[in-house]
Amino acid sequence: MKKSVCFLSLFFTLFMFAQQLKSPDNNLELNVTLTANGKVQYNVKYKSKAVIHNSNLGLILKNLEPLNENFELMNHKTMTFSEKWSPVLGEEKEVLNQYNQLKVELLQKTTGRKINLVFRLFNEGLAFRYEIPTQEKLNYFIISDEETQFALTGDHKAFWIPGDYDSQEYSYNETKLSQIDVYKLDMNNGIGMKGPMTKSRIQSPVMMKSTDDLYLNIFEAAVVNYPIMHLDVDLKSFVMQSHLVPNAIGDKAYLQAPANSPWRTIMMSDDARTILSSKMVLNLNEPSKIEDTSWIKPMKYVGIWWEMHVGKATWDYAGSQNAQMAQDAELKPTGKHGATTENTKKYIDFAAKHGFDGVLVEGWNVGWEDWFGNWKENVFDFVTPYPDFDVEEVQKYAESKGVKMIMHHETSGSVSNYERRLDRAFSFMKKHNYDAVKSGYVGKIIPRGEWHDGQAMVNHFNYVVERAAEYKIMVNSHESSRPTGYHRTYPNYIAAEAARGNEFNAWSVGNPPAHETILPFTRFLGGPMDYTPGIFEIKMSHYDATKKEQVHTTLAKQLALYVTIYSPLQMAADLPENYERYPDAFQFIKEVEVDWDKTEILEAEPGDYVTIARKTKGKESWFLGAITDENPRSTEVALNFLTPGKKYKATIYQDGKDAHWEKNPKAYSVKTIVVTAKTKLKLNLAAGGGTAISFFPL
Amino acid sequence: MKKSVCFLSLFFTLFMFAQQLKSPDNNLELNVTLTANGKVQYNVKYKSKAVIHNSNLGLILKNLEPLNENFELMNHKTMTFSEKWSPVLGEEKEVLNQYNQLKVELLQKTTGRKINLVFRLFNEGLAFRYEIPTQEKLNYFIISDEETQFALTGDHKAFWIPGDYDSQEYSYNETKLSQIDVYKLDMNNGIGMKGPMTKSRIQSPVMMKSTDDLYLNIFEAAVVNYPIMHLDVDLKSFVMQSHLVPNAIGDKAYLQAPANSPWRTIMMSDDARTILSSKMVLNLNEPSKIEDTSWIKPMKYVGIWWEMHVGKATWDYAGSQNAQMAQDAELKPTGKHGATTENTKKYIDFAAKHGFDGVLVEGWNVGWEDWFGNWKENVFDFVTPYPDFDVEEVQKYAESKGVKMIMHHETSGSVSNYERRLDRAFSFMKKHNYDAVKSGYVGKIIPRGEWHDGQAMVNHFNYVVERAAEYKIMVNSHESSRPTGYHRTYPNYIAAEAARGNEFNAWSVGNPPAHETILPFTRFLGGPMDYTPGIFEIKMSHYDATKKEQVHTTLAKQLALYVTIYSPLQMAADLPENYERYPDAFQFIKEVEVDWDKTEILEAEPGDYVTIARKTKGKESWFLGAITDENPRSTEVALNFLTPGKKYKATIYQDGKDAHWEKNPKAYSVKTIVVTAKTKLKLNLAAGGGTAISFFPL
Repeated sequence: MKKSVCFLSLFFTLFMFAQQLKSPDNNLELNVTLTANGKVQYNVKYKSKAVIHNSNLGLILKNLEPLNENFELMNHKTMTFSEKWSPVLGEEKEVLNQYNQLKVELLQKTTGRKINLVFRLFNEGLAFRYEIPTQEKLNYFIISDEETQFALTGDHKAFWIPGDYDSQEYSYNETKLSQIDVYKLDMNNGIGMKGPMTKSRIQSPVMMKSTDDLYLNIFEAAVVNYPIMHLDVDLKSFVMQSHLVPNAIGDKAYLQAPANSPWRTIMMSDDARTILSSKMVLNLNEPSKIEDTSWIKPMKYVGIWWEMHVGKATWDYAGSQNAQMAQDAELKPTGKHGATTENTKKYIDFAAKHGFDGVLVEGWNVGWEDWFGNWKENVFDFVTPYPDFDVEEVQKYAESKGVKMIMHHETSGSVSNYERRLDRAFSFMKKHNYDAVKSGYVGKIIPRGEWHDGQAMVNHFNYVVERAAEYKIMVNSHESSRPTGYHRTYPNYIAAEAARGNEFNAWSVGNPPAHETILPFTRFLGGPMDYTPGIFEIKMSHYDATKKEQVHTTLAKQLALYVTIYSPLQMAADLPENYERYPDAFQFIKEVEVDWDKTEILEAEPGDYVTIARKTKGKESWFLGAITDENPRSTEVALNFLTPGKKYKATIYQDGKDAHWEKNPKAYSVKTIVVTAKTKLKLNLAAGGGTAISFFPL
Repeated sequence: MKKSVCFLSLFFTLFMFAQQLKSPDNNLELNVTLTANGKVQYNVKYKSKAVIHNSNLGLILKNLEPLNENFELMNHKTMTFSEKWSPVLGEEKEVLNQYNQLKVELLQKTTGRKINLVFRLFNEGLAFRYEIPTQEKLNYFIISDEETQFALTGDHKAFWIPGDYDSQEYSYNETKLSQIDVYKLDMNNGIGMKGPMTKSRIQSPVMMKSTDDLYLNIFEAAVVNYPIMHLDVDLKSFVMQSHLVPNAIGDKAYLQAPANSPWRTIMMSDDARTILSSKMVLNLNEPSKIEDTSWIKPMKYVGIWWEMHVGKATWDYAGSQNAQMAQDAELKPTGKHGATTENTKKYIDFAAKHGFDGVLVEGWNVGWEDWFGNWKENVFDFVTPYPDFDVEEVQKYAESKGVKMIMHHETSGSVSNYERRLDRAFSFMKKHNYDAVKSGYVGKIIPRGEWHDGQAMVNHFNYVVERAAEYKIMVNSHESSRPTGYHRTYPNYIAAEAARGNEFNAWSVGNPPAHETILPFTRFLGGPMDYTPGIFEIKMSHYDATKKEQVHTTLAKQLALYVTIYSPLQMAADLPENYERYPDAFQFIKEVEVDWDKTEILEAEPGDYVTIARKTKGKESWFLGAITDENPRSTEVALNFLTPGKKYKATIYQDGKDAHWEKNPKAYSVKTIVVTAKTKLKLNLAAGGGTAISFFPL
């Protein structure tokens, strides 16, 4: 019996069609094949070594014959493409978009339906997507499942988080693929809102490393009108299969031809730095749809926020009394409300004094007394301030100080309510001179039954950004689905959270020291993250002697994060009074830029360390950040990225001699030296530590 | 074995508490009892005869102990209430709201939770609701089911439509309760969008008549933040049980204490006219929340609408090509588009000439090429006219003629899209001087998985009306959930369709002649219906000789409907050229009023006939409408509603001698006589016919 199965298997995998494609540098090789029963498969090699074994491709349609076999080739086309484009805000002044493309046009013999598969080979990886062209036999359709396989070649080391439909705010797990087990995770991790999970379903992007040191990353780009793709991992065969996040009734995506899936991406390199410098995901997104982008500006900001996380103040005005909104009940102030006019003025003063662009105020609007955990629909109205927050007075004061206010819109997951009120909310913002909004989605989604990562929510996040563009408003979404490069298309999508941010350090088990060395290989590939670095008072016992929570880095590493984390919107998250106690360290935050002409990934190893240098947009200054995991690290970096022949004043912010993220996190030193492009700098990073350096030409 | 069951049953029904309440006129008697195991039951008698046997009450909560037993009485209170109030628009200048109330406050011993049952006995029926007061033990909760029973006393005759979650646009079935069988219905009835159904689930309101001639109606009032109640009928015991329409994931209602269910109503009388003149449903709704109602005005209107139904014109501009919206594709006009500037001007001229207040234009905005049947989300944008409809020019022309334009918003069921665009749509309306909107919901609901009759949609319909009020816009919703008196609270909710309207006669099996004699006992109890009467060209063969469809009434009955159907928004639905061919009959439509000081139900029998007289608001004129079913009818009506001593010119529009809805529907005659309050008029109605009379004081 077994033999005959083998025989049949051989019989059916006789190729009807095979096409090869190479990357521009010839290192990557793609083979696309059509089997005897008309199934499409692909495999990938890197420097002649198999990276992805033959893997199936296909779509399952609701109430229609699956689009996964019985194909015949109608046509195939190859092309080469190369262009340079300039992002509005970014890590590079110019981005090279270079690939070789293979387009395979297929006809399903049994149905007469057409589907195209488009493959793009960049030097750093493969991208492919499904395209349903306009056709008579297929117009509206529902995707029930996507059968995209990634057949890995071995039991790679992987950095993964569980395939939760509702949250990505997990610490990364570093295990062999075969050891993935979501059920073994400690879920007492501070995440307030978790969705369904299964044992071996993980999220993309997943970063991997093979035993022979190939770095490998599976992700997606340009998720538009489609759900987020998670990955079901076969723990024995190491085949990953796409799992699309469903909607309330189990459907995945509602489409009308012509339609495309997002790009599925497989980045690969024997140099980890290639993954970090890749602009593949950005390149796979459409160019900017905003014509006049002059109003989209990078922003360094402070805000009334961390003081709530450390327990010094509250978002709410009247305590958690399960009160209705202010319209319905008289609120009695507790005296702990953070977002007062007076406190806001203090932050505006601080921002003006130290050159910050913006001030965020959370908890300014009524609703926080009863906002979370009850699937409540009408929580916030986004236009009614608490009695102690005078919008007009704040506006006038901020304008007089030349500081921009940043609006906060917590939706508590009630998207129906937010969409109903969006125009009113944005009009209110513009009336009061707000150009940027931080949105939040903490809570179970309404429409009920939807998940944060489903098609409807992807569309919502994109819609908000598109509608915001019409108001010339920049968006920084928190608890959204993780970005996949859509900020190329809508550059006002200035940042997102969509991963475990610094805030978890304030009130949970926190983020392990390795966390920030993994994020660049995962979350950051999709777009800027509002991680909110810059915490100087590392230990929460500073606020309350009984507290054990702490940031899992040294103070110097908090500085280095401003460089290792790319975002054109960066917060100086700690309290003004904390910064004022460490003026020499704070100087780096004041000086560091957030928009760049050039980025050099100097060193990178996922889960271990990252060293990055960036040149300021339009200026000669550079900034360098080096971070390590829980292990101390000594390294030497060549400053050959600096302009040859020029002298620079380098100010080095480094861990103190006995610094240690847990035992002695606040030990740091600042020194200034003169360097040139020929200088080699020795860096000594403490356990959980980092080094930040500014370079100003002399 | 059987005996012991009986014994147990007896044991458990020992009353722990019993309270009686009577209606103001003492004809109705309510008994509320608490059984030994703490279940609440009620029964009702009318003139000492049982109407509702002991019936259970209770709520099933998701993930919590059911709120249906283990109750103990905390308190009970009775009160009498009587007030008069004036509706903004209505059938009466003053409405009497008079009832006796019993409030039963219960504590669930096992959980410490509280629930109140409030019963109101009007002279014409019982209303009761569940109230969850603010309490420590119950704050947020989800209703999984409502266990409200209506234990009927016999196998009554019932006028019912199937318990479809998505549509009420059915013809009524007249059967014994025991003969209800949804599966036996011919579903080839022209309804484009049907939801799930079961064999013996029917909709409320359901009108019934017992073998001893008691008229009985089960319905609900003030459905706010709650799903619509359908009824599961036990075909043997004649017990009806509430069935709430679920949401996408099977939940019924999301509530927070304090919260109320809608009122469950049981109207009863030995005089069918009592049911029609009842204002119970209105009285059970909250008073108007709109302070300045001066902008809410009754409206008689014509429009570009019927010509699409008869096939003379199309809503779309470019044919059904599955085109994307006009923004995406160039549209080629078919030449059949109804909503052109030129055609609109023709209707404006006609409205101005004949004294109509408004002109409705459907098909004015892009999207109709691909609007229905595909669960498409972004169909209409509500602000982009077709190239041949010049909004500015139409506005100017209508203003110059003193005619108001009525906007049309077809959502195709894509509520997410409509809510996103609602503020833009309403702003566009006000900019162009539209004060009223006809909305449409033809299609499967988005958010996907929701039904037209679920809580989310009830909230949507109410939200649109509330938001419209802020813009001073009147709403006429089509394909919405059927109204339950919310127009008392928001009088700008001027009308709704939400039943099988006249349009079905143009292109389906149509509405049987009895249809309009049943609607007053069912759909109209909840609020005004935009039925669109006034069709003079009864047979569709007028437009196309091959067509068999026709209106199932005589022409004279079409006139009578303006009186028998109460609505402050009434359309003269036929084409201008058709009216111009019958100027004498058209005179009635020109003269008939739509807002009233007084209404007299002269005769009524569900499924057979209705005769109603109404006195014009603020004037001495009266209008009378008499309609019959498929049987001809002769009757005599006393005109004692007229002011005694006054002489009136009565113009009688009646069926011609050989008139018959099918064989000779257009035969009619008009005569004028002088009458007084003492006059008795003989009316002769043809099969499917009617009589309309205007009375103007001399």
